[in-house]
Amino acid sequence: MTSISRTTRGVYAIAPTPFHPDGRIDLDSLRRLVDFYEAAGADGLTLLGQMGEAPKLTHAEAVEVAAAVLDRTRLPVVVGVSAPGFASMKALTGEVMSRGAAGVMVGPPHTLRTDDQIVGYYAQVGEALGPDVPVVVQDYPLTFSVVMSVPVLRRIAREVPSVVMLKHEDWPGLEKISALRAAEEAGAMPRLSILCGNGGLFLDFEMRRGADGAMTGYCFPELLVDVVRLMGEGRTADAHDLFDAHLPLIRYEQQAGVGLAVRKYVMRRRGLLADDAQRAPGRSLTAAERAEIDVLLERLARRDPRAKLS
Amino acid sequence: MTSISRTTRGVYAIAPTPFHPDGRIDLDSLRRLVDFYEAAGADGLTLLGQMGEAPKLTHAEAVEVAAAVLDRTRLPVVVGVSAPGFASMKALTGEVMSRGAAGVMVGPPHTLRTDDQIVGYYAQVGEALGPDVPVVVQDYPLTFSVVMSVPVLRRIAREVPSVVMLKHEDWPGLEKISALRAAEEAGAMPRLSILCGNGGLFLDFEMRRGADGAMTGYCFPELLVDVVRLMGEGRTADAHDLFDAHLPLIRYEQQAGVGLAVRKYVMRRRGLLADDAQRAPGRSLTAAERAEIDVLLERLARRDPRAKLS
Amino acid sequence: MTSISRTTRGVYAIAPTPFHPDGRIDLDSLRRLVDFYEAAGADGLTLLGQMGEAPKLTHAEAVEVAAAVLDRTRLPVVVGVSAPGFASMKALTGEVMSRGAAGVMVGPPHTLRTDDQIVGYYAQVGEALGPDVPVVVQDYPLTFSVVMSVPVLRRIAREVPSVVMLKHEDWPGLEKISALRAAEEAGAMPRLSILCGNGGLFLDFEMRRGADGAMTGYCFPELLVDVVRLMGEGRTADAHDLFDAHLPLIRYEQQAGVGLAVRKYVMRRRGLLADDAQRAPGRSLTAAERAEIDVLLERLARRDPRAKLS
Amino acid sequence: MTSISRTTRGVYAIAPTPFHPDGRIDLDSLRRLVDFYEAAGADGLTLLGQMGEAPKLTHAEAVEVAAAVLDRTRLPVVVGVSAPGFASMKALTGEVMSRGAAGVMVGPPHTLRTDDQIVGYYAQVGEALGPDVPVVVQDYPLTFSVVMSVPVLRRIAREVPSVVMLKHEDWPGLEKISALRAAEEAGAMPRLSILCGNGGLFLDFEMRRGADGAMTGYCFPELLVDVVRLMGEGRTADAHDLFDAHLPLIRYEQQAGVGLAVRKYVMRRRGLLADDAQRAPGRSLTAAERAEIDVLLERLARRDPRAKLS
Repeated sequence: MTSISRTTRGVYAIAPTPFHPDGRIDLDSLRRLVDFYEAAGADGLTLLGQMGEAPKLTHAEAVEVAAAVLDRTRLPVVVGVSAPGFASMKALTGEVMSRGAAGVMVGPPHTLRTDDQIVGYYAQVGEALGPDVPVVVQDYPLTFSVVMSVPVLRRIAREVPSVVMLKHEDWPGLEKISALRAAEEAGAMPRLSILCGNGGLFLDFEMRRGADGAMTGYCFPELLVDVVRLMGEGRTADAHDLFDAHLPLIRYEQQAGVGLAVRKYVMRRRGLLADDAQRAPGRSLTAAERAEIDVLLERLARRDPRAKLS
Repeated sequence: MTSISRTTRGVYAIAPTPFHPDGRIDLDSLRRLVDFYEAAGADGLTLLGQMGEAPKLTHAEAVEVAAAVLDRTRLPVVVGVSAPGFASMKALTGEVMSRGAAGVMVGPPHTLRTDDQIVGYYAQVGEALGPDVPVVVQDYPLTFSVVMSVPVLRRIAREVPSVVMLKHEDWPGLEKISALRAAEEAGAMPRLSILCGNGGLFLDFEMRRGADGAMTGYCFPELLVDVVRLMGEGRTADAHDLFDAHLPLIRYEQQAGVGLAVRKYVMRRRGLLADDAQRAPGRSLTAAERAEIDVLLERLARRDPRAKLS
Repeated sequence: MTSISRTTRGVYAIAPTPFHPDGRIDLDSLRRLVDFYEAAGADGLTLLGQMGEAPKLTHAEAVEVAAAVLDRTRLPVVVGVSAPGFASMKALTGEVMSRGAAGVMVGPPHTLRTDDQIVGYYAQVGEALGPDVPVVVQDYPLTFSVVMSVPVLRRIAREVPSVVMLKHEDWPGLEKISALRAAEEAGAMPRLSILCGNGGLFLDFEMRRGADGAMTGYCFPELLVDVVRLMGEGRTADAHDLFDAHLPLIRYEQQAGVGLAVRKYVMRRRGLLADDAQRAPGRSLTAAERAEIDVLLERLARRDPRAKLS
Repeated sequence: MTSISRTTRGVYAIAPTPFHPDGRIDLDSLRRLVDFYEAAGADGLTLLGQMGEAPKLTHAEAVEVAAAVLDRTRLPVVVGVSAPGFASMKALTGEVMSRGAAGVMVGPPHTLRTDDQIVGYYAQVGEALGPDVPVVVQDYPLTFSVVMSVPVLRRIAREVPSVVMLKHEDWPGLEKISALRAAEEAGAMPRLSILCGNGGLFLDFEMRRGADGAMTGYCFPELLVDVVRLMGEGRTADAHDLFDAHLPLIRYEQQAGVGLAVRKYVMRRRGLLADDAQRAPGRSLTAAERAEIDVLLERLARRDPRAKLS
C-alpha cells in the first residue's frame, strides 16, 4: 500500500459521499465516482472530509464508505478522521489504515486559539495515532475558526514527525505557501507536501508559489489535473487560460453552505451520481440556482468541451 | 420506566465518567457514584454531558456507561446525545432509550447563529429522534457559542413537542427564567421544566425566579438537594445560609477548563472515585490548585460538616 | 442635495482613503479619485467604509475627508459612520449630513447575535440619528461576524423607517436577494435599495436576482458600471463576457486582509493615487504579489484595453 | 506626577462614568466618587474602561471626564484608551498624559488570533504611543475574545518596554499568575505589575498566587482594599472571612451585561451617584433584580456593617 509522504504531488480529488434520496449511502455511485477519478487522472483520493458529509455518518457507515473505496482503487486514499475525541479518531483510523488507507486528515477543534493549543493538539494527535500513520493537517480557518500562523505550522512540522502534508486552505494563503517553502529551504522545518483546497479558487497562483498540487472537490477534477500538469510543464499561460475559463464556475461552487449542493448537482448532470441528495441537515438547490449553474456550464462548454452536458 | 416531563422537579446530578489512570472506564467507581447520588437524595441523574467527557468516548463506550448506570438505579436518567450529525445522535438515542433512559439532552452545534437556524435545528432533532423521546435543550452559550433568546426558546417549546425541559445555563440568566415563566403564564408557550446548571453558581436566586431545580455536577450534590428542598419549603434564609457557605467552592469549581478536575479531585477525596484521571485531552490539578481546594474544604467544613474529609 | 432612497440604482464606488507615505491624508489624490469616479460613470460615492480605513482616522480627519469629497462632487455621497457608541456616530453623522451627504452607512457591532439584538440595534441607530438621515445597513458577516437572516432584514425594513438601503455582502447571498425581493412583492416589507459589495465577486448573478447595483471598491469601477448597465439593457451575455474577463483580478482583490493593498496598488499604477500607502496597521504587497497582479493586468488587457497600463 | 510602574501595588478602583437620566455626564457625582475612592483607601484610579462606558463617549467627552478626575485627585490615574485605530488612541493618550495621567490601558481588538498578531499589536501600540507612556495590557478573553497565553505575555513584556502592567482578568487565571511569576524569577521576562479584575471574583487566591493587587470596580472598593491589605499582612484567614462575606454580591455583580447596572445601583444606594443611569445602549435593573440586590446587601450587612444602607 502506498502512503502519502512529504513529497507527494498531484491532485487528490475529494469525493463527496453519494446518498439515495431516502438518506441511505449509495455505494454504486461511489464506485462509479472512484472509476471516474481514476480516468480523470487523479493521483489520489480523499474521503470523509467536511464536504464528504463525514460528520453525518455513524462510525460504521464511515468504515463502510472507506472500505468500498479502498476495495475499488489502487490510488492512495486519504481519509478524514476528525472527531471531537481521540477515542473515536483512533477507532476510525485503525479501521481505515488496516484496510490500506494512505493516511488520515485531521482538522482542529474550533475551540483552539493560542499557538501552544494548536501545536499541542497535533502533538496529541500524533501520539494518539502512533508514528506509522501519516497525518494531513487541515488548515481551513473559514470552517474551523482556527488560525494557524506560519510559526505554528513550522512547529507542528518539527515536533510531530507523522505530520507529512498540509491541506492548505487558509484564505488568503499565497504568502503562507511562500513562507513555508522559505522556512523549509532555510532548514527551519522539514518539508511538507502542500496540497491546496478552497475549491481550487487560487490554484493558478498557488502552483506558482510552490504548492505540490490540489486536494479539493471541484466538480471538474480534470481541470485540477490539467492545471497542475501544465504548471509542472512550465506551460503557465496555457494553465491560466484553462483555469480562467473555469473560474466563474469554481467561484460559484466555492460558496459556503451551497458548494456541496452545486458539486453534487453538476456530478449528477455529468452522470456520476444517481442523485444529488444530501443527508439532513443539508439543502437542495433552488430552481434559480440550478438555472445559474446551467448558464455557467453552457458558457464554460464554449471553451472546455468537457463541460458540454446533454 | 419514568420519563422526564414538563413538570419534572428536583436535582438531576450530572455524573462525571470515572477513568482509570490508563484511560479505561472505571465502572466500579461509576456504580459507587450512582449509589452515592441516590443516598444524597438526587431525583435523577444525567450522563454524558460536556462534563462527563462524552466526546472522548466511542459510541460503544457511551452505550456501556449508560447501560451500567441504567442497570444500577431506578432513578430517571437523562443521557447527553449531542453529536455532529443526526445519524450518530439517533444511534445513541436508540441504544439508551431502549435500555430505559428517561430522556436525552442535546446541545446546539457551535455554528448556529440566527433564530431560525436554532429553532430549525431543534425541529430537526425532534423529527430525527421521534415523538416518543423527551428532549432536554441545553442552553449554554459560554460553551456552545450559541445564544438562545427568549423568543427562540418560546418557538422551540411551541414547535417541537418532544422538547420538555430546559437545562438552563445561560449566564446571566435570572431574567430569562422570569421571562419564560411569564410567557408560559401568558399562554405564549407550553410549560418547560427548567433545571439549572452553571455548577449551581446562581441556584439560590434561580429557585426564587421559578426554576424547578438543578441539573449540574457540583461535587457536593447534597448542597443542591438541600437548597432546592429548603427553597421549596419556604425556608429561604436557611437556603441562603447554606448556599453561601458553599459558594467559595462552587465558584472555584465553576472555572472553565479546570472545573472537572476540581470536581473529580474532591470526589476522590470523598472516596467516591478511585482516581481523578481524565482522558486526554484533559489536565490534572497543580499542587497549588490542590492546596487551594483543601483550604476551601477546610473552611467549608466549619459550616457544613459533610465537607470534613479525613 | 440628493439623498439616497429606496429606489436608488447604479454603482456607488467605494473610495479608499489616500495617504502619503508618512501617514498624512493625501487630499490631492482624493480629489483626483473623485473626478475619476465621475468620469467612469459612477452614480454615487461611498466614503469611510471598512476599506476606507475609517477606523484609523480621528473624528476630525473623518470630517476632513468627507468635506473634501462633498466639496468636489455633485454625486450623492454615502458616508460610513459605524462607531462603538452612539455619541460618536451621531457626532460624525451631524457633520457630514450638514455638509450635504446623501446618507450614512452603519455596520453592526460584532457582539450582536440574536435576531432581537440585531433589530434592536438598528432601531436604536434610527432613533439616535433621527428620521431625516437615510441609513444603509451593511450586511457583511465575514467581517462583522453578525449574521442577518431574511426575517431580521424584513423586520429592520418594517420597524426602522429611515433604513432605505442594504449594502449586501453576505456570502453566499444570491438567495437572500431573491427572498428579499419576494418579501417586498408580498407586501411583507417596504422596498430596500440593494447595492452589492464583496468586491463584485457575484455581481453578474446578483443583478439577475434583482439587485439595484453595486457598492464596492473594485479597482476598475468602469467594469461595475458596464455590468450594471449591460444587465439593465438586457445584454446579459455581453455583461457576462466582460465580467468573466475581470473575474481573475476581482477574485484576487477580494482576498481578506490583502484586498485594500491590491486595490491601492492598481490605482497607483493607474495614476489615480500618488502612493499606495496604508496607515498602520496595514500591510504592503510583497514582490511576489505585485508580480501576480501585473500578470493579471496583462492578461486582462488582452480583453479589456482599459487595463493596459504603461 | 506619579506614573505606574512594574512594581505598582494595591487597589486601582475602576470608576464608572456617572450620567444624568438624560444622558449628560454628571461631573458632580464623578468628583464625589473620586473623593470616596480616596477615603476608601484606593491606591489609584482607572477611568474609561469597558465598565466606564468609554466607547459611548465622544473624544471630547472622554477628555472632559479624565480632566475632571485628574484635577480632583493626587492619586495616580490610569486611563483606558482602547480604540479601533491608532490615530484616535494617540490623540486621547496625548490629551490625558499631558494632564497628568499615570498611564494608559489598552485592550486588544477582537480580531487578533495568533500569538504573532497579539504581540505585533502591542508592539505597534508601544511604537505609536512612544516610550514615555506606561501601558497596561488588558487580558480579558471573555470580553475581547482574544486569548493571551503565557508565552504571548512573556514576549510582550520582553519586546515592548513601555508595557509595565497586566490587568489580569483571564478566567480561569490563577495558574497564569503563577506561571508569569515563575517566568520572571527565571529571568525569562521583566517583572510586570499584576492587578486583577473580574470584579474581584478570585481576589482571595489571586493574592496568594503573587498578584500585586486589584484593578476592578466592585461596588465596595473598601473590601478590595481590606483583602489586599490583610493578605499583605499575612492575615490570610481574616482576608478569606471578609472576602467570603462579600462573595455572594461579588458574584451577582460579576454577571456579564448586568454588572454595571448592579454596580451603579449600589453606588446610588450608597449615596455616591445621583442617578444610576447608563447611556444607551444599556439596560436598567428590573424590580426583581433590585430586590435581589437588596437581599444581598441586607445579608452582607450582618457581617460587614459598611453594607448597612438606610
